[in-house]
Amino acid sequence: MRKILLRLSYDGSGYCGWQVQSGGSPKPTLQQVLEDALKVLCREDIRVIASGRTDSGVHALDQPVMFRTASGVPTDRFQRALNGLLPNDIWVLDARQVDDDFHTIANAKKKTYRYMIHNAPNHDVFLNGRCLEYSRKLDLTAMKQAASLMVGTHDFRAFCSSGSSAKTFTRTIYHLGIEKVGDRVYIDVQGNGFLYNMVRIIVGTLLAVSEGRIMEEQISQALSSGERSLLGETAPPQGLYLLQVDYAE
Amino acid sequence: MRKILLRLSYDGSGYCGWQVQSGGSPKPTLQQVLEDALKVLCREDIRVIASGRTDSGVHALDQPVMFRTASGVPTDRFQRALNGLLPNDIWVLDARQVDDDFHTIANAKKKTYRYMIHNAPNHDVFLNGRCLEYSRKLDLTAMKQAASLMVGTHDFRAFCSSGSSAKTFTRTIYHLGIEKVGDRVYIDVQGNGFLYNMVRIIVGTLLAVSEGRIMEEQISQALSSGERSLLGETAPPQGLYLLQVDYAE
Repeated sequence: MRKILLRLSYDGSGYCGWQVQSGGSPKPTLQQVLEDALKVLCREDIRVIASGRTDSGVHALDQPVMFRTASGVPTDRFQRALNGLLPNDIWVLDARQVDDDFHTIANAKKKTYRYMIHNAPNHDVFLNGRCLEYSRKLDLTAMKQAASLMVGTHDFRAFCSSGSSAKTFTRTIYHLGIEKVGDRVYIDVQGNGFLYNMVRIIVGTLLAVSEGRIMEEQISQALSSGERSLLGETAPPQGLYLLQVDYAE
Repeated sequence: MRKILLRLSYDGSGYCGWQVQSGGSPKPTLQQVLEDALKVLCREDIRVIASGRTDSGVHALDQPVMFRTASGVPTDRFQRALNGLLPNDIWVLDARQVDDDFHTIANAKKKTYRYMIHNAPNHDVFLNGRCLEYSRKLDLTAMKQAASLMVGTHDFRAFCSSGSSAKTFTRTIYHLGIEKVGDRVYIDVQGNGFLYNMVRIIVGTLLAVSEGRIMEEQISQALSSGERSLLGETAPPQGLYLLQVDYAE
């Protein structure tokens, strides 16, 4: 048995997330589509494990996915063969063999997400399902100030949607940057791991700060009390991109 | 009767072009979808005229479209009302009343198109139907050299697909720029008007020059002889964007 590590990019707008979590959906899941393609290629049932399950509508530029195979398909064949089998909103960037003790979830050291806001009065027809459209003026200064409170090691249980299976809530955010480029605002966040919906709650909270609905003190209070209701709404999924997962120390 | 000028942006990938030209297609045309929305809003049959008919799969960032209406809908209501009625891959940027002798086709002085090439070995899942994917290395120096031969006033009949209804073939290209930004190559062309498929033949020819299949002399010969076969293939539609139409002198 070999263990193979794929790196995938995908436009999540046509999918019901990485893995179905509840209820039925007419859309397929990314995991199912990938496993179906692997079954055609390897002629065996294959179970894949991503570095994390992206929600319905969330995108990835570089999602690591591992699986074991007993097939004889050469490792350097996987990328091209899978790209021939997968729909054009999923793309395999790379495939290589890894040690059997490598694990996409357990070994992840750092994750980087981007949240993209189209901040303009006009709708951008080329960004359907790929950003949050937000026409009000953003108070970037207040947002950056609030963001600085979230950086570091904290108990982030207030930044977690119910339904999380996390055992501990302490996480470290290494970087939380906000940058405006033309009509787009990018919120980039890097940490050692993220709770369920944590990035989207960070973004929703920063938007509420920009609108003056949440004050800086509330963020400090939320971090110390763990009270979800002190924070902003969970921002919608379509603006979220998994950018990178780092495994090296 | 008022005459209204709309400015439209659209992602053309879901449409059979501005107007059906031949054959049947399961996809609607942009003109039909816009006229249907106007009929709902104005309660009358309305015929719209764009500055030019974009082909199936071609996009627009700012397409001028005019129509006459006898309805009482206030001019400043059109933008919001149409955007509420149109699908999210079409967006009205602006609506204003114009003089009755204004004409979107006859009064156009300058048009600017962009052709977008994704020049990388990997497919970009976010650019499906929105660029030409081209993985070979581009010889930008040779392409710029060849482009410079096309700038100016020439008889462009060699740069025209059959089926054109043009009466004269003389056009002026004011600017033909090629710029590489990361993995993307933008070919921007501005002229006083374009023949049928002219921009896509320019792009296909520049790609053939990059590949060494067409020499500079052939372009000069094509301009003097009008021989279409001396030039490159018509580049595919999905990379083409109508950027702007200028009406001022």
